[in-house]
Amino acid sequence: MEFISIVEIIGTIAFAMSGALTAIEKDLDYYGIGIFAITTSVGGGIVRDLLIDRPLPASLENPLYALISLLSAGFVILFYAHISKLAKMLQFFDAVGLGAFTAIGAEVAVRTGLYQWFVVVTLAVLTGTGGGLIRDVFAREIPYVFRKEVYAIASILGAILYIIVFRLAGSQMALYSCFLATTLIRLYCMEKDVHLLKVGKVTME
Amino acid sequence: MEFISIVEIIGTIAFAMSGALTAIEKDLDYYGIGIFAITTSVGGGIVRDLLIDRPLPASLENPLYALISLLSAGFVILFYAHISKLAKMLQFFDAVGLGAFTAIGAEVAVRTGLYQWFVVVTLAVLTGTGGGLIRDVFAREIPYVFRKEVYAIASILGAILYIIVFRLAGSQMALYSCFLATTLIRLYCMEKDVHLLKVGKVTME
Amino acid sequence: MEFISIVEIIGTIAFAMSGALTAIEKDLDYYGIGIFAITTSVGGGIVRDLLIDRPLPASLENPLYALISLLSAGFVILFYAHISKLAKMLQFFDAVGLGAFTAIGAEVAVRTGLYQWFVVVTLAVLTGTGGGLIRDVFAREIPYVFRKEVYAIASILGAILYIIVFRLAGSQMALYSCFLATTLIRLYCMEKDVHLLKVGKVTME
Repeated sequence: MEFISIVEIIGTIAFAMSGALTAIEKDLDYYGIGIFAITTSVGGGIVRDLLIDRPLPASLENPLYALISLLSAGFVILFYAHISKLAKMLQFFDAVGLGAFTAIGAEVAVRTGLYQWFVVVTLAVLTGTGGGLIRDVFAREIPYVFRKEVYAIASILGAILYIIVFRLAGSQMALYSCFLATTLIRLYCMEKDVHLLKVGKVTME
Repeated sequence: MEFISIVEIIGTIAFAMSGALTAIEKDLDYYGIGIFAITTSVGGGIVRDLLIDRPLPASLENPLYALISLLSAGFVILFYAHISKLAKMLQFFDAVGLGAFTAIGAEVAVRTGLYQWFVVVTLAVLTGTGGGLIRDVFAREIPYVFRKEVYAIASILGAILYIIVFRLAGSQMALYSCFLATTLIRLYCMEKDVHLLKVGKVTME
Repeated sequence: MEFISIVEIIGTIAFAMSGALTAIEKDLDYYGIGIFAITTSVGGGIVRDLLIDRPLPASLENPLYALISLLSAGFVILFYAHISKLAKMLQFFDAVGLGAFTAIGAEVAVRTGLYQWFVVVTLAVLTGTGGGLIRDVFAREIPYVFRKEVYAIASILGAILYIIVFRLAGSQMALYSCFLATTLIRLYCMEKDVHLLKVGKVTME
């Protein structure tokens, strides 16, 4: 069993919880909660591993990811009755997962020798948003990343911060800065309801 | 044209039929039926081939898969008027496809030298459930695998049986045991309506 | 920054515009329009690059694709108020994108040494239909390719033309012939509303 970083554990737990809460919202049973927890938490990483052409996705080699996801789902099942604001909790865990997987995506890019800023940012954003996107497709929702303006933007800003901090203070600092910045930007804009102007539906008359 | 195993042919036919029936349920035309048949039957294999990093998916190299799928679609079109229980037929073919592709997924894992139990089981489950999952996403349904508790579980049990039989009696016996066990478990639980407790939607009051 | 062919630029712009118009139809904001533009335009290429096992998708290495997509989205935002027939414009750009990416898919197959007709056609169709398919899944629509009969068929005919012209007159001529033929077949059948018979929903009584 390979070592998993703390950021990866946090991201896995957060996305698993957001998946479990989505399943509860969709009125699924214990089993559905478990499956949603796993797919949401490993989805981002599988997307990343496919894109960088890894021989086998990390979550397929290492049972830790599925195990952590199932424990998180169990935790949600035990305590869901005490959760008063389901939608808000879901968004909170989603923001933490977004931050964690953005940081991991950026780190994986740099670790596999991809140093161009565009590549680092794109891999970070796809890894960060992939899990939630898969969750929302399976739950038949238009994914967050399409609806919430400061979602991918938080991820992009976090990834840029990663590159800057990486050059100044190395890999570890960059990982944590990116994780925290992405999560906080997302949470702040969620809380303050920051959003861009809507175009409005074009009427056909 | 490469040789395709009997289990693969059975799985392809079964998933193609489940795809064709889904298209009929969604009120699509002949063409939609054909496309649903193909995507459902090759979906699981493409997912598997992407995960094990195969240079080119089998169904892209070998026209047999698409050909078998189209013939199955044609068969469904000819006889759909005589099908009285569409939903039940769909679930039956889906169960057979699940069993066949679970067995193939496990076999591919072992054949590519991946012997760890977790890897074999995960690859088996993803290959087995992939086709139906893609079908349901395209048909805008919440995928079976999220709703039916003894769906992925049947696949997991089948994959575990594969590993056990593989060690005792070799690859061929393991393939057929896994195929039959997965299909029968799924059909039995479908028939008896075995399911786990539902958590129930958390109300917001 | 690598060179991108004119057909690729046309396809990227067309699919980006179809994505942007879909986002407007779905009542999303500026941000959602941008994200839909990007995912639709790079989706087909990412599918293609995953299938041929490219180390890193082209759109991830080269920022030009995202840049062109965002400019196209900006263009749509500026002029959407003047678009009187949104659904028709969407279908037009979708047809152009289908043609362009079918041609690119066929070219990539031949360039990577895959000369069998089945492989060329399949890769062409998957590349051509991939972007629109991803767009429709994210927009929660049943994808065009499942509903419009002369969609994949236009792509298949275009790919066959590519192979014939490639043998007679080389790669460049084949690329443009395939692009034009696919787009024109699709547009003609759209305009004339050519379609196959519908099976009709099987009623349960």
